[in-house]
This record gives sequence, structure tokens and C-alpha cells, in this order.
Amino acid sequence: MVDQPEFRRVAIIGVGLIGGSFGMALRKRGLAEEVVGIGRNLQRLRRAVELGAVDSCTLDLEEGVRGADLVYIATPVGSVLDFACKALPFVGPDCIITDAGSTKSEICRGADELIGNRAAFIGGHPMAGSEEAGVEAAKESLFERTTYVLTPTASTGPGVVERMRRAAEGIGARVVVMDPEAHDRCVAVISHLPHVMAAALVLLARKESEFSPQVFDLVAGSFRDMTRVAGSSPVLWRDICLSNVNAIGEAADGLKGLIDQAIELMEAGDAPSLEDWFGDAKSVRDSVYPPKR
Amino acid sequence: MVDQPEFRRVAIIGVGLIGGSFGMALRKRGLAEEVVGIGRNLQRLRRAVELGAVDSCTLDLEEGVRGADLVYIATPVGSVLDFACKALPFVGPDCIITDAGSTKSEICRGADELIGNRAAFIGGHPMAGSEEAGVEAAKESLFERTTYVLTPTASTGPGVVERMRRAAEGIGARVVVMDPEAHDRCVAVISHLPHVMAAALVLLARKESEFSPQVFDLVAGSFRDMTRVAGSSPVLWRDICLSNVNAIGEAADGLKGLIDQAIELMEAGDAPSLEDWFGDAKSVRDSVYPPKR
Repeated sequence: MVDQPEFRRVAIIGVGLIGGSFGMALRKRGLAEEVVGIGRNLQRLRRAVELGAVDSCTLDLEEGVRGADLVYIATPVGSVLDFACKALPFVGPDCIITDAGSTKSEICRGADELIGNRAAFIGGHPMAGSEEAGVEAAKESLFERTTYVLTPTASTGPGVVERMRRAAEGIGARVVVMDPEAHDRCVAVISHLPHVMAAALVLLARKESEFSPQVFDLVAGSFRDMTRVAGSSPVLWRDICLSNVNAIGEAADGLKGLIDQAIELMEAGDAPSLEDWFGDAKSVRDSVYPPKR
Repeated sequence: MVDQPEFRRVAIIGVGLIGGSFGMALRKRGLAEEVVGIGRNLQRLRRAVELGAVDSCTLDLEEGVRGADLVYIATPVGSVLDFACKALPFVGPDCIITDAGSTKSEICRGADELIGNRAAFIGGHPMAGSEEAGVEAAKESLFERTTYVLTPTASTGPGVVERMRRAAEGIGARVVVMDPEAHDRCVAVISHLPHVMAAALVLLARKESEFSPQVFDLVAGSFRDMTRVAGSSPVLWRDICLSNVNAIGEAADGLKGLIDQAIELMEAGDAPSLEDWFGDAKSVRDSVYPPKR
């Protein structure tokens, strides 16, 4: 499919679900001549080689990144900048450094300060997979038909955006290019706050069960759907929330204001406005997810 | 299956989705000797007869309810008491009058005052079907494996509870007996507030789209699931909410308090407590809906 691979040597730091799937997808689609996995556990790295996530592996960051034209950091959000700085002395100014962290403001601000023009940094957020973890769960198709957000910083050149766009589209994703702050506000609204809402709703029902033990006998589809993500990993969501506190706080204020709006209409007995309020939401929802039939 | 039908003559006031399905289920399972449909539109009532929802139909409430040992009122919440009072002069003290309204406090309080011992009132809330409406959507199996809440009032005798329990179980439902106020608090928490939350979340995303038009490109499973019920009928939810304002307002206050708890932990950077907060919700969620595998 590709005459010339997009990348000569890709170094993946952190070969888990995302890093491993990225490696598999690049390799299977001929987008990289060589993919090296870098990690802290040799056994897990060897497993990544066996599974076809990477061609080779090393515990030595210098050895791994030297000569790379793409360094892909798929570690927890908190350690991305640290790994970027560790890789910096061993790569050239044209090497693209990118990450897969689920929040982008801090990382992009830090990368601008710490990396500058010594390498070509661009933030990334592949919106794929979250319930399972580890390279055992990695799969070549993980990014297909998912959204891959790219967040260029002030120092990211347009050529870098285009190369990463080709890579992300090459592995089957839809690419959205956004400002890092806008990204963080959006994911606070459409993902982080919903996880907080789901957990809060479960805890509210538990509180109600102290008065009415039957409350959980009454649950139907709306409760089941709205609380599904409350079953996600507490450690994962603790970390994601802590990396996006301001945007989640603002989103929560907005949500509370909108709920108050509805309650005020109910208390005023203002049936027409309350119907409009629900109707407004329905028309937006139906435009995002057109109803079947 | 049944030697002797539970009811001799059942009068259903309002033969739509719920009333029609109730009639079908009673008839198919031999739980009533005779089912009469009462409504305001002769054409629709005749259609109900054709579909097998009722044996016969009439526009005349007196003619319909006379001699009934069960009057089943499946009209909108706001008109239940009115129909109960209209039926009262034509039924005996042993006739059970029940309803299918989705909130119970007002109706049960009113029934206690207005009906007293002149008939045997018991509130009911079959937690089945809501997206479709009308007798065309009615089906005999609507109540199977759903929850049917019965809310006795101060004047409801134990024999009445047991007869209605047999009827509801006879059509395939699980019966939960609750105090009307407790019922309304519970459905506020597990159904009404979730509908408000879903609509508020959609409206929040729409607001965000004024700053970031790409916000809807980023939506994933959590947003889709949490906003599904925002696609429900605005008229239906306007009416349900207006019939349960106090309980929804209290539930909303509880929810806001729990969201604030999480935000405060984030702002304090209190990782262990935030993990516990999510972990607590996960353990409750997993106990209600045990994870597969």
C-alpha cells in the first residue's frame, strides 16, 4: 500500500495497550521500517516482540531512541515530559516526539518550554480503548474508526502535523487537529465529567438505599446506561481527573447550572419552557446520533 | 394455568401502550373473564378490540366500570384521580381501583382523601415501556421480567395488595411493594434525575461547541451512553418531572453535593481519596450489575 514507509525508525516508550497497538498497526501497514520498544520490564518487552507489537526491544532508552525519526511516548500522563527530556539528547531536531496522553495542556505547555526546537513535538490523544490494559490486549485494529486528536504547540511546524496526520490516518483513525486547551475543555465535557457524573449517580442511589433498600430493584435502562462507566478503573480515572482539574471543575459548574435551570422550571411549574428545555436537548442529541427508522 | 380467573370484569380506562398491554396480558393468560376498554375515541377503542387488548369497548364510563372488580386507570398522571372519582359511584367497596402513573405520592394521598373506603385503592407503577405510545405498540409480553411497583395507601387492605400482586406476577412482572413517597424518591434518583442529567450534558456539549466546533467529533462511548435518554419524548418527561418536582429537586441537590465532593478532592490533589471515591462507586455499580467474565 505504501511505497516508502512514513518512518524509518520508530521508538515506542511504554509498550502497553496503546503503545503496543500503535506498533502493531504501523508494522502491519508498512508505515515504519523498524519499530523498537522501550520499557522497564524485559519479560513484558519480549512478550511485545512475540506478539508482533515491536521488532525489537531494549531497557536502555538511549539505545532505543538513537536514530529514531519518531519517538512515541505511551506512558501515563504524569511521566510523558520526563521521558521526552530523557530522549532529547539522542535525537535530531527533525525527530518527531509525540505522546498518547489523555490530557494535553500541561504536556504541550511543558514540551514547548523544555523541548523548544531541539526536536519536533506534537501532542496526541488517540481516543481508543481504556477498559483493558497491557500489551496482551493490544491489537492492530485498535485505532480503526476512532478519533485521533493532534494538538500542535506554538513550535510545531505544519510538516510535522501532516506527517502525524498521515500516520494516524494510515492506521485507520479520523484525525482532529485542536488547540491543547480546547482539547482539554472538550474531553472534560464529553468524557471526564460524564465519568464523575456516573460515579456520583451510583453513590446517590447507594445513599437512597439507606432509606429505601428496594431502590436497586427499580433500576431500569436509563440508570444502567448512565452508570456504565462507573465500572471503569478507579486508578485510571483518578489520574485522568487529576490531570484536568480546571477544565473538569468548569464543566461541572456548567452542568450544575443547566440542572438548576431545569429544576427552576419545574418548581415554577413552567410546562412550556420545560418542554422546550428537554426538546432542545433532544434536537442536539438526535443531530449527533440520528435516531434509527 | 388458572382454574378460576383472578378477576371477573376488568375495566381499563385509557387503552394505550400500558392499558392495552395490560388488557392483552390478562386476556391471554386467563386472568380475567372479561376486559372492557373505556376511552374518548371510538375508532381507537375499536382498534384495541381488533388487536385483542380488550373484549369490548365503550365511550361511556358508567357503562364500562359498572360491575367491575378491577378498574385499571392508565391515563396520564394528572387525570388519574379525576377518573377514579368518576368511576366511584358505579363500583362496590370491594372493587379494586388502581393506576399506572409513574409517580405515586400525589395520587395516593388524593385517593386516600377522595376514595376512602368506598372502593379499594392501591397505587401501581409498571416500569415498562416509555418510548413508544398508543395501543398499536401494545403487546402481551410488555410486563415480562419488568418491575411492577405497588404502593398501598393507609386504607389499602392486605388482601388488595395480594390480589394485585397475583395479577402483576401473573403477567410476568416482579412485584415490589413500597410506600408512595419512598417510590417517588427512588424513581427521582434512578430515572427522573438521570433524564435531566442526560439532557443537561447534551446542552453543556452544545455550549462547548460554540468555542470548539470539534467537540462532537470527539464523543465516544461514555457520552453516547450517558445521553441516550436525552432522545426521549420532551412532552413525556416534562409531565413526569412536573409530577415529582420535590423529589427530583432533592435528588439534584444530592447529586451536586457528590460531584462537588469529587471536584474538591481533585482540587486538593488528594489522589488516594479520589481513588477511593471512584472505587466506592465502582464497587456499588459492580454489585448491581456484576461485570461479565
